[in-house]
Amino acid sequence: MSFRTIEWRDDAVIMIDQTLLPGQEVYNTYSDFRSVAEAIQGMIIRGAPAIGVAAAMGVALGARDIIADTHESFFRQLENVCDVLARTRPTAVNLFWGIERMKRVAEANRDKKLDQIRELLKKEAIRIEEEDQTICHNIGKWGATLIPEGATVLTHCNAGGLATAGYGTALGVIRAAHEAGKNIQVFADETRPWLQGARLTAWELMREGIPTTLISDNMAGFFMSRGEITCCVVGADRIAANGDTANKIGTYSVAVLAKENNIPFYVAAPVSTLDLTLSDGGKIPIEERPASEVTHIKGIEIAPAGVRVRNPSFDVTPARYISAIITENGIVSGDYRSGLRKISC
Amino acid sequence: MSFRTIEWRDDAVIMIDQTLLPGQEVYNTYSDFRSVAEAIQGMIIRGAPAIGVAAAMGVALGARDIIADTHESFFRQLENVCDVLARTRPTAVNLFWGIERMKRVAEANRDKKLDQIRELLKKEAIRIEEEDQTICHNIGKWGATLIPEGATVLTHCNAGGLATAGYGTALGVIRAAHEAGKNIQVFADETRPWLQGARLTAWELMREGIPTTLISDNMAGFFMSRGEITCCVVGADRIAANGDTANKIGTYSVAVLAKENNIPFYVAAPVSTLDLTLSDGGKIPIEERPASEVTHIKGIEIAPAGVRVRNPSFDVTPARYISAIITENGIVSGDYRSGLRKISC
Repeated sequence: MSFRTIEWRDDAVIMIDQTLLPGQEVYNTYSDFRSVAEAIQGMIIRGAPAIGVAAAMGVALGARDIIADTHESFFRQLENVCDVLARTRPTAVNLFWGIERMKRVAEANRDKKLDQIRELLKKEAIRIEEEDQTICHNIGKWGATLIPEGATVLTHCNAGGLATAGYGTALGVIRAAHEAGKNIQVFADETRPWLQGARLTAWELMREGIPTTLISDNMAGFFMSRGEITCCVVGADRIAANGDTANKIGTYSVAVLAKENNIPFYVAAPVSTLDLTLSDGGKIPIEERPASEVTHIKGIEIAPAGVRVRNPSFDVTPARYISAIITENGIVSGDYRSGLRKISC
Repeated sequence: MSFRTIEWRDDAVIMIDQTLLPGQEVYNTYSDFRSVAEAIQGMIIRGAPAIGVAAAMGVALGARDIIADTHESFFRQLENVCDVLARTRPTAVNLFWGIERMKRVAEANRDKKLDQIRELLKKEAIRIEEEDQTICHNIGKWGATLIPEGATVLTHCNAGGLATAGYGTALGVIRAAHEAGKNIQVFADETRPWLQGARLTAWELMREGIPTTLISDNMAGFFMSRGEITCCVVGADRIAANGDTANKIGTYSVAVLAKENNIPFYVAAPVSTLDLTLSDGGKIPIEERPASEVTHIKGIEIAPAGVRVRNPSFDVTPARYISAIITENGIVSGDYRSGLRKISC
């Protein structure tokens, strides 16, 4: 990879600023947990696995900076750190997963000295980041088996290296197929309103030398109906026990159009994206973001002043539209309820 | 209507510049047929019925300026005027319909003096503009019967007053339902890449006092799946004999999503949009426009430099997704092939 999405360096967190891509490649340094929370909220970093890593690193930063005489005080303040980070984005479950994993490490080492706990938390955050890269490569290996030679793969949003610690989930599948020597090309939905496809996916794939065609979201159906798309691969922000999948707004539409055109529709995500506590997707909270994301593009107003706007950031694709879910532990299809339970162990 | 889309005034054509809306309301004056052709090509004016009117007025301007000693010379040059106007946009059949209607008037009056023919062409162009307004009101009257009290109507692109000589086709249906006292609201797809929904439909409907919510194209499916949309109404650029309908890119996706969610999907268009010479939609030419429309918004680059782009401006919605086609002569549903033939007489 020719860029780093997020890393721990010199006791600070470095993130590439995804609001400035592709125009500028700027790496910001975050030295305290509140600025990490703001970076997640402000989408400096985005993508479910990446914000899981960022949240974990935020917890480590917060733990380092806690001033406490007693374990009780430390753990009370750590709880507050976790709460602030958990309130940044509601939909991606990896955020909560990352925070919970950090909490468990702290709890499991409650008998140790505070500085030891702080050190263990830092190591855990770095481990989560490293594991995520391995996970993505494994998702890629499994997923590449589903991509035929010569395929044109449609993807939505950015489930790439920028959405993870590196390599990507949906783009990990695409990278792995490309690395396996399959002669594939990609159609990237631009993904309004935030343009993750135009700004991030196109940028990543062009760097990788994978032929990529940018289209507006509303063109995907046209190319499917013309027989120009072989399959669709997207990421996920939360997957319920029955396979219903929350992902970037517009994913549901891609899935319906794929089904209507008999095109396989795949979801690629780490097991940490599973939320088996939810029986189905109906209860996944859907974040609504500011109207200005729709009415303004790079500060330029594109709609009449004062127009009413709705801006849901995610939608839920019912499992019946999903041909398979690709995880680091293998591919699940058909009976998602039992398959996902098995694969998550 | 609080604006004029196109009118003939003082021997010139006045058009509102739709590339500048909603930021600026500027009326341009066109005094020769070549500048009218450029205005159509450059989308100063757009919308199938409106470009039919513009093309007719362009023919009238061209005829006025022809310098000819003989009828043969006049008609040869008139043919050239028509060719230039016909080459501006390939998909909307109203363009060709408007030009053909002007040609027929010239042919039918070949025995008259050239200045009389010029005067008749001018009158015909003005008549086409006036008729279009009447047609839209009649489409509105028929269509309003399909809109329930309290409906939330989703529309795509701008099939409004700005796409016609006034009142609109899809927005004519919405206006008529609103004027009939039905308490309705509208969801407007922003309609990338050209943002006709954000820039034009939202502007028109806000002026009309009809409650309007702007969404990104990829959100329509989400709101349908949540039960927030009562029905969809869109315009058309060309309707084949079997009901297959070419319209703004993304229409097909809206139609598929509507069917999947059991939501009625209506097409509103004048009879001049029918192309009964085409058995089905497969042969409708689909215009592909410049990549810069996708990669730049108001001159701002939103994608990596040099990215490959596809930019089809239209798609074809197969008739099986269309609940009914609303024309000025009545509503057709079910057997489109016989229904459209009857209604076009």
